Amino acid sequence: MSFSITLPDGSKKDFTDAVSISDLAHGIGTSLGKAALGAKVNGQIVALDYKLSKNAEVAIITDRDEEGLAILRDTVAFVLEAVAKKAYPEIHFGEHGTDDEGFYVDTDKENQIKINELPDLEKAVKKVIKAGEKIASCMMSKDELADIFNDDPYKSEMLKAEKGDQVQVYKLGDFIDFGFDALLPNTGKIKQFKLLSVAGAYWKGQSSNPMLQRISGTAFFKKADLDADIKRREEIKERDHRTIGRDLDLFFVDPKVGAGLPYWMPKGATIRRVVERYIIDKEVADGYQHVYTPVLMNVDAYKTSGHWAHYRDDMFPPMDMGDGEMLELRPMNCPSHIQIYKHHIRSYRELPIRIAELGMMHRYEKSGALSGLQRVREMTLNDGHTFVTLDQVQSEFSKILTLILDVYKDFDITDYYFRLSYRDPKNTKKYFANDEMWERSQSMLKKAMDDMGLDYVEAEGEAAFYGPKLDIQTKTALGADETMSTIQLDFMLPERFNLTYVGQDGEEHRPVMIHRGIVGTMERFIAYLIEIYKGAFPTWLAPVQVEIIPVNLDAHSDYAKKVRDELNKRGFRAEADLRNEKLGYKIRESQTQKVPYTLVLGDKEIKDKGVNVRRYGTEEEVAKSFDEFISEIKQDVKSYSREE
Amino acid sequence: MSFSITLPDGSKKDFTDAVSISDLAHGIGTSLGKAALGAKVNGQIVALDYKLSKNAEVAIITDRDEEGLAILRDTVAFVLEAVAKKAYPEIHFGEHGTDDEGFYVDTDKENQIKINELPDLEKAVKKVIKAGEKIASCMMSKDELADIFNDDPYKSEMLKAEKGDQVQVYKLGDFIDFGFDALLPNTGKIKQFKLLSVAGAYWKGQSSNPMLQRISGTAFFKKADLDADIKRREEIKERDHRTIGRDLDLFFVDPKVGAGLPYWMPKGATIRRVVERYIIDKEVADGYQHVYTPVLMNVDAYKTSGHWAHYRDDMFPPMDMGDGEMLELRPMNCPSHIQIYKHHIRSYRELPIRIAELGMMHRYEKSGALSGLQRVREMTLNDGHTFVTLDQVQSEFSKILTLILDVYKDFDITDYYFRLSYRDPKNTKKYFANDEMWERSQSMLKKAMDDMGLDYVEAEGEAAFYGPKLDIQTKTALGADETMSTIQLDFMLPERFNLTYVGQDGEEHRPVMIHRGIVGTMERFIAYLIEIYKGAFPTWLAPVQVEIIPVNLDAHSDYAKKVRDELNKRGFRAEADLRNEKLGYKIRESQTQKVPYTLVLGDKEIKDKGVNVRRYGTEEEVAKSFDEFISEIKQDVKSYSREE
Repeated sequence: MSFSITLPDGSKKDFTDAVSISDLAHGIGTSLGKAALGAKVNGQIVALDYKLSKNAEVAIITDRDEEGLAILRDTVAFVLEAVAKKAYPEIHFGEHGTDDEGFYVDTDKENQIKINELPDLEKAVKKVIKAGEKIASCMMSKDELADIFNDDPYKSEMLKAEKGDQVQVYKLGDFIDFGFDALLPNTGKIKQFKLLSVAGAYWKGQSSNPMLQRISGTAFFKKADLDADIKRREEIKERDHRTIGRDLDLFFVDPKVGAGLPYWMPKGATIRRVVERYIIDKEVADGYQHVYTPVLMNVDAYKTSGHWAHYRDDMFPPMDMGDGEMLELRPMNCPSHIQIYKHHIRSYRELPIRIAELGMMHRYEKSGALSGLQRVREMTLNDGHTFVTLDQVQSEFSKILTLILDVYKDFDITDYYFRLSYRDPKNTKKYFANDEMWERSQSMLKKAMDDMGLDYVEAEGEAAFYGPKLDIQTKTALGADETMSTIQLDFMLPERFNLTYVGQDGEEHRPVMIHRGIVGTMERFIAYLIEIYKGAFPTWLAPVQVEIIPVNLDAHSDYAKKVRDELNKRGFRAEADLRNEKLGYKIRESQTQKVPYTLVLGDKEIKDKGVNVRRYGTEEEVAKSFDEFISEIKQDVKSYSREE
Repeated sequence: MSFSITLPDGSKKDFTDAVSISDLAHGIGTSLGKAALGAKVNGQIVALDYKLSKNAEVAIITDRDEEGLAILRDTVAFVLEAVAKKAYPEIHFGEHGTDDEGFYVDTDKENQIKINELPDLEKAVKKVIKAGEKIASCMMSKDELADIFNDDPYKSEMLKAEKGDQVQVYKLGDFIDFGFDALLPNTGKIKQFKLLSVAGAYWKGQSSNPMLQRISGTAFFKKADLDADIKRREEIKERDHRTIGRDLDLFFVDPKVGAGLPYWMPKGATIRRVVERYIIDKEVADGYQHVYTPVLMNVDAYKTSGHWAHYRDDMFPPMDMGDGEMLELRPMNCPSHIQIYKHHIRSYRELPIRIAELGMMHRYEKSGALSGLQRVREMTLNDGHTFVTLDQVQSEFSKILTLILDVYKDFDITDYYFRLSYRDPKNTKKYFANDEMWERSQSMLKKAMDDMGLDYVEAEGEAAFYGPKLDIQTKTALGADETMSTIQLDFMLPERFNLTYVGQDGEEHRPVMIHRGIVGTMERFIAYLIEIYKGAFPTWLAPVQVEIIPVNLDAHSDYAKKVRDELNKRGFRAEADLRNEKLGYKIRESQTQKVPYTLVLGDKEIKDKGVNVRRYGTEEEVAKSFDEFISEIKQDVKSYSREE
């Protein structure tokens, strides 16, 4: 036997006998030997006791590697299972795994483990860690394992999915499980961990399967990392638009009256109305023609567009209207705007034609995927389609992008990047067949970005079948990448719907269609805003802009009402709190509700014809004349509350 | 034989022999004898040759009576049939009849008679009139008639529906038909008539039946009446919102993509947007909380509300979403607003709670009933529901009515009347069982009307099952009575959905729900506005408020653009017509498009920094400074273009 191990730096080590990862690491250096948690062998993760016996590329994994964290987290998941099995002898386990966020273990039966039992489980895991018990690994035959998991439907099914006859298993005392890449050899090696939550989860993630229960947790090598992560989670929770939406009474969803169908309470509706009016006014000023088109359309239109063939699973069931008519709740607005375009013969002189709408659409999402305003089944999209000649692609693209950036500025959206998606140059047959269109338009998009001096990521092969596109990616409060805006060229729909314009030559030509969205759907955008502002909306968006509190109900209510009415008359959203509650309570509530301005009015203010102003988030109270206050709030709204 | 005839004035005439209507009339007086067209015998209309042979109340019909017109029109219809049978020997006839508008005759086969063939038919009828042919009447047995109409499916079916064995028939030469109350005895008695249109009409009005063809016409005794009627028809056609909607490019409906589902073109959409923002702002200022609620709802909610049991034929087919969820496109918004109310525990301190929405709804209307924006399947209602204590009914009712009248003033709606509907006092069991609620609320509604000094019609027995209501009736351009606004009390839904508020006593109480609509659906209201304004919208609503025309494209376009941009910046909707067309053409088109202000700009205007203004509908051109024009149009919009 003779083989050679290639290390990441390219150096080679030759062996004549099988060698374990642990021994290999120790051989390279004592500190690496101590730090080693496992290795990547030809790209596959293995444990420390894995025996090398032929040529391979090997990278030792330590706590500095991402994979080290995965090994640690898998180990905690395994120990958690062992401990849970002791506490709940009847328990069965479904899937387990790790991800960027931590680890999870699925257990059978809903509500078997209560959230308030997690601390006890955590204590039990810690005890095992402290005892420094050995985690043994070995290979076992599938038959043998099938006997062991005979009464466990989930493990039996998972076992069948394992490849090969022999399966690697891990043991901790009597407890045995499989399906891990690599675990640490001793529970004593586990450092910082925390159990976080229990929640329902379908077996294998499919809603047709039984509902199991998922225990989630996380683990780190250093206490500081765990503390930072827990703090981050609290912050996310604090920003969660569902929590804030409930606390500020912005919206609710009740699956009993309709899953994924949000009800916008008055305050949430006010924010949405301000956003809708803002975006329509912006678009109209930019040359868009706003329309209203029906949410229902004959299914034939979606057959023409191709949605029926390729997108049907995401669509609602069609409705038979009699007289041979089948209607469909539209899953997108493009075919509707095409009707508007087709309603007249169009001349090159009219192009670009810009059609926009706050278009309500319906998409079928699995009930498990629905979430607050973020993932819904009924949504209203800030949609627009512009129809241009191929020559106009670059200038129209720049114009749209300029509008998008202008809107971002007003909403104070700063954390985003651009991704330009082209067709795959090695596989052009996968795409709509018109080389000239692809080549000219892709270079026009690129040139537009360069001319505007914008940085961007280029993604070859990421274009849609029907044309290249620009996506603008933002980050949600949960840290997820989300497409906020998009500009997509479409060569296909003009062809399918036979769209034309009469050119200068008197002949019919085919326009290019550009799908563009600025702020996306009202639902998702406002979920996003709730999260970035943590519910403390800038004055121009705040549902209540001014809360007016009389010091004494008897003495100061009239003045409070007068100030309120004067503000309302000037178009501000002001409320007077005339309830029979203590002054301090009212001021606190105004802060909890994150009202931008709280005015406390008493004798002094009446005498001075003034107001006492407290800005949200400050402790400071400032006496102002009514006129001073009016110009302050006017400027605040007019500038979209931007600090400039 | 001896019998007595009672005349309308109560006088009696005794006879011993049978007497015809004609003889009876002549016996009363020569002029009545000449004027007689038929009679009402015990309320039933009969012809002149009808023989009286027993006691009866008889009123002679002359051309002064409504029924006289019906006899005349039926006679024209009959002659038309006879003439058409000669011209198209294969023809069969469906139903015939008269109404307020004239008469109609249905003929088999679509497109058998072309619109341009009507003049020939008209000529042929006139010839018969001139010839003064006798129209004979007699009774025939059903069997005999069945033989005659053996090959005519329509007449055969109509014959079966006739009561009794003997059927009254009329004959003109060889031609024979039945189903008329009374005809004139001679074609020479027909005075003024006109054939108006041919159109498709389903056999017996049911869309599952074959499509026939309907010839419509009208007839009068005096030429002046016919002329006035034709003029009225032209005016109606000129006002028809479908015609204006097409000419001004406001909207369209394409049954191929969706029957009854209008597409709002940019100009129509602008009008709608202005109306929507106007009404929302009015309502918010009046204490309404605007919300957005989903257009879909679990069918269970409509089972609770009772709509599923009683209203299902008007609803769209439900959609099976899987997981046991059946969703329904909502036919009304009340259950949605009830969800908003129920989302919190409500206190008497919060009442009245006023929830409003521009709520999209879907109602299944038969395809034959659909018409432009007037009768549609998808509509957006200016809807509102207020929840009050029984004590608050009167003040809330007055408040709503005040708001309605305020809105009418802004839209210059002046032709309307009030109808107050109560339960039937003789049949209170038909209604929701709560005598106190009915009695107190009905008297509160009446008192509110009286206190406001408003006249109203009282309609006993016209209330809904669930509560009394006020309807405000307007007239459409077609002269039809239409409910524009409504205030309906509802005692039932609060019960069915178990709505409560916590009273001052700490106990749960049942609120009264008030359904109220101010301008109805956007679709129907804007159809109405198009008709009352004949498309010449007041400035505040006009899709284009200012059309700017440079005298010379080269010399004056820059100034035209500058004026346009300055106007747009100030929030006005201005367009510059920079097409390569003649000045006169552009000015005429601005008039055709009914733009309120046309500005023609040349050297003089540039020199004076002014504008040359022509108001729509005038020939006059007035030179103004730009600032003067701005204050004029500003005042025009601010005052809702009312002359005060």
